[in-house]
Amino acid sequence: MVKQHCAEILCVGSEILLGNIVNTNATEISEALSAIGINVYYHTVVGDNPERLRKAVEIAKDRADIIITTGGLGPTCDDLTKQTLAACFGLELELRPEEEKRLREYYLGKLGNKKMTDNNLQQAYIPKGATALQNDFGTAPGCAFEKAGTTVIMLPGPPRECLPMFRNRAVPYLKRLSSGEIASHMIHIFGMGESVIEDKLRSRMLELQNPTLAPYAGEGEAKLRVTAKAETHELCEELMAPVVKECSDLLGDVVYGIDVPDLETSVFRLLKANGKTVCFAESCTGGLVSKRMTDVPGASEVFAGAIVSYSNDVKMKLLGVRRETLEKYGAVSSQCAEEMAKGARTALGTDYAAALTGLAGPDGDGSGTPVGTVYITLDCEGGTYTRHICINTFRSRLRTIAAHNAFDMIRRHLTGLPVIR
Amino acid sequence: MVKQHCAEILCVGSEILLGNIVNTNATEISEALSAIGINVYYHTVVGDNPERLRKAVEIAKDRADIIITTGGLGPTCDDLTKQTLAACFGLELELRPEEEKRLREYYLGKLGNKKMTDNNLQQAYIPKGATALQNDFGTAPGCAFEKAGTTVIMLPGPPRECLPMFRNRAVPYLKRLSSGEIASHMIHIFGMGESVIEDKLRSRMLELQNPTLAPYAGEGEAKLRVTAKAETHELCEELMAPVVKECSDLLGDVVYGIDVPDLETSVFRLLKANGKTVCFAESCTGGLVSKRMTDVPGASEVFAGAIVSYSNDVKMKLLGVRRETLEKYGAVSSQCAEEMAKGARTALGTDYAAALTGLAGPDGDGSGTPVGTVYITLDCEGGTYTRHICINTFRSRLRTIAAHNAFDMIRRHLTGLPVIR
Repeated sequence: MVKQHCAEILCVGSEILLGNIVNTNATEISEALSAIGINVYYHTVVGDNPERLRKAVEIAKDRADIIITTGGLGPTCDDLTKQTLAACFGLELELRPEEEKRLREYYLGKLGNKKMTDNNLQQAYIPKGATALQNDFGTAPGCAFEKAGTTVIMLPGPPRECLPMFRNRAVPYLKRLSSGEIASHMIHIFGMGESVIEDKLRSRMLELQNPTLAPYAGEGEAKLRVTAKAETHELCEELMAPVVKECSDLLGDVVYGIDVPDLETSVFRLLKANGKTVCFAESCTGGLVSKRMTDVPGASEVFAGAIVSYSNDVKMKLLGVRRETLEKYGAVSSQCAEEMAKGARTALGTDYAAALTGLAGPDGDGSGTPVGTVYITLDCEGGTYTRHICINTFRSRLRTIAAHNAFDMIRRHLTGLPVIR
Repeated sequence: MVKQHCAEILCVGSEILLGNIVNTNATEISEALSAIGINVYYHTVVGDNPERLRKAVEIAKDRADIIITTGGLGPTCDDLTKQTLAACFGLELELRPEEEKRLREYYLGKLGNKKMTDNNLQQAYIPKGATALQNDFGTAPGCAFEKAGTTVIMLPGPPRECLPMFRNRAVPYLKRLSSGEIASHMIHIFGMGESVIEDKLRSRMLELQNPTLAPYAGEGEAKLRVTAKAETHELCEELMAPVVKECSDLLGDVVYGIDVPDLETSVFRLLKANGKTVCFAESCTGGLVSKRMTDVPGASEVFAGAIVSYSNDVKMKLLGVRRETLEKYGAVSSQCAEEMAKGARTALGTDYAAALTGLAGPDGDGSGTPVGTVYITLDCEGGTYTRHICINTFRSRLRTIAAHNAFDMIRRHLTGLPVIR
């Protein structure tokens, strides 16, 4: 049987409690721990206050057998993590000559002969018996020790120091504690709500023990995580394969990928694999679709460009939308979306063009068209397809969902699915 | 005297502990609490596990007098926050007819006659005696109650639902708890690093007790918050006014606004006030500048559109960039940026045009131009100005900073400042 560890990540830093910085260390460490089969049961953030930190450590000792701290290892008088943790575990700090040497060399060398002030020396003190963890990107070393059934890892706060130290120094230390493997796959879904997904999968979610199923709601998207634990990575994969297949079959063609970063990356890969190019004509999304396409590194291989036509003049002049169309049907119409898509495909000379026109709000355009209406047209050699959505939500979310729809239509065409569901 | 509260933010969600999502709710809520004078002493994250959640609530009751939870209010069987918190405080859940009505209407109306599955009804249950907090952007209402000296606020997990509910419903509820007033102003800065700002203001930051000064680092931007506590709002404002002026004078023209949402909103307001229009020609930013401009509601009053020219063909065909320019100087050059800006201003007929061309990476273009190079040109009747930046950072950050620079150049021209610093 795989031994179950439970870890707590204890982040020390008043700047996190002030909302000054986002605690990305906890996220990254959690993801890496989950990949080596260590369950994270709690994150705690506490300020640079020794008494509150001491109490938080006592609580963590009670409920976790691995405690990973971040922050508070530096040279200032706020940096109290090592002192406090050592005291909580009845350990003394000792000056490590090799750490002192490394520190003095760092100041001499990398920091260009900067004089090392005395307060810096406290960084070279490590709890007696602990393993020092070298800091490849800063001055403060981390450390690791085991005491009374608890494993403690202390890491520096700045992510550029913390995360490499975690991956390169702490993970090898922790791997000795795990006797099994954990692995997971993420099923990515567009076009089905979280509660419908759960309805479809409820009985299996309750039944399944290993692998387990967990649904996640995104913005207009959803995800389903399949996680298995076993002796080896191969056994994990064997456990997951039939469940991933079963869920994908049950959900159907709303599944746009397994373990892909996002819809735009799926579309990028499909376009590239098929040797096709794309362009966009954006009105209500105002550049968002193009921005997302170019978030994908290498997008220039498939993406020629876009025309953001936020005024009727630009729709007519650059996309060739006819004045009569605008007068008769308005800019927020399937007719206008179609002319925009065709116009963009002609102007930019691509295989696919997607056009979006709608009312993102908060105000209407006086025509009676409800805020939240968007027409999305896909134009390609195979035909012209228009989706109509109307969602009463706030501006940024509507734009996001409209962009999702444009990518979904391209994906569906490229994979031979009906473009309009 | 203003009573000192201590708050704990208790986020419920296994997806945070798995490292699947970053806990931005805790950051945003912390910042907003600090702005109304409530100290945050702890963040805790716990999974969708009723027993561990119960224990975390017991700990929070002991050490905080305000507990704010996020997550676990939805319709799935994982959503156990309300049940658990209610039990911890000896309260029963009751079906609120008005919440049920709202829920059914939401499914009928906003979700386009989508059938409401039975599991959704659990969202309409609220602890007896609690105030329901309306969810303007989703189905699950939040709630707030006071019991045995503790104030509890429960918010949904998705940030698009959580944060508006916190700002619009929970903050007014919490404000009643403070016996004095707290007010703050945020000074927004672009073009000066956090450490330079701190150097300039260090002595004042240490001296000042009321108001206080706190710097915040953003992505290529910075902010400085001035916070005052007093008996009345007017007294707060009186305390802050000279300090806001002093800091703004000290920092100089890198201050782009006080209490403005962001740089693009500042630019929008300036354009509107001056009756001017703008368009963009985007290469490396791929639509990001236009997307940000159109994030601002009402952008159509000042923004005509944009041409995203991701290929050289599009640069030539739609923006009139000359082939010789591309051949002689390359697409990533000040010459190309200038022709793009002029071409966009001609094609779209606006007062201002900003063009961006650069290498966002991760790969170079083989020309020897370093990844991280961006040329940004502002073209208008008053002249043509080009900024050159080269920052060794990752793709998304470089694009963000490049977009900041485009907005900053427009702002500086519109306010009569030198466009190139």
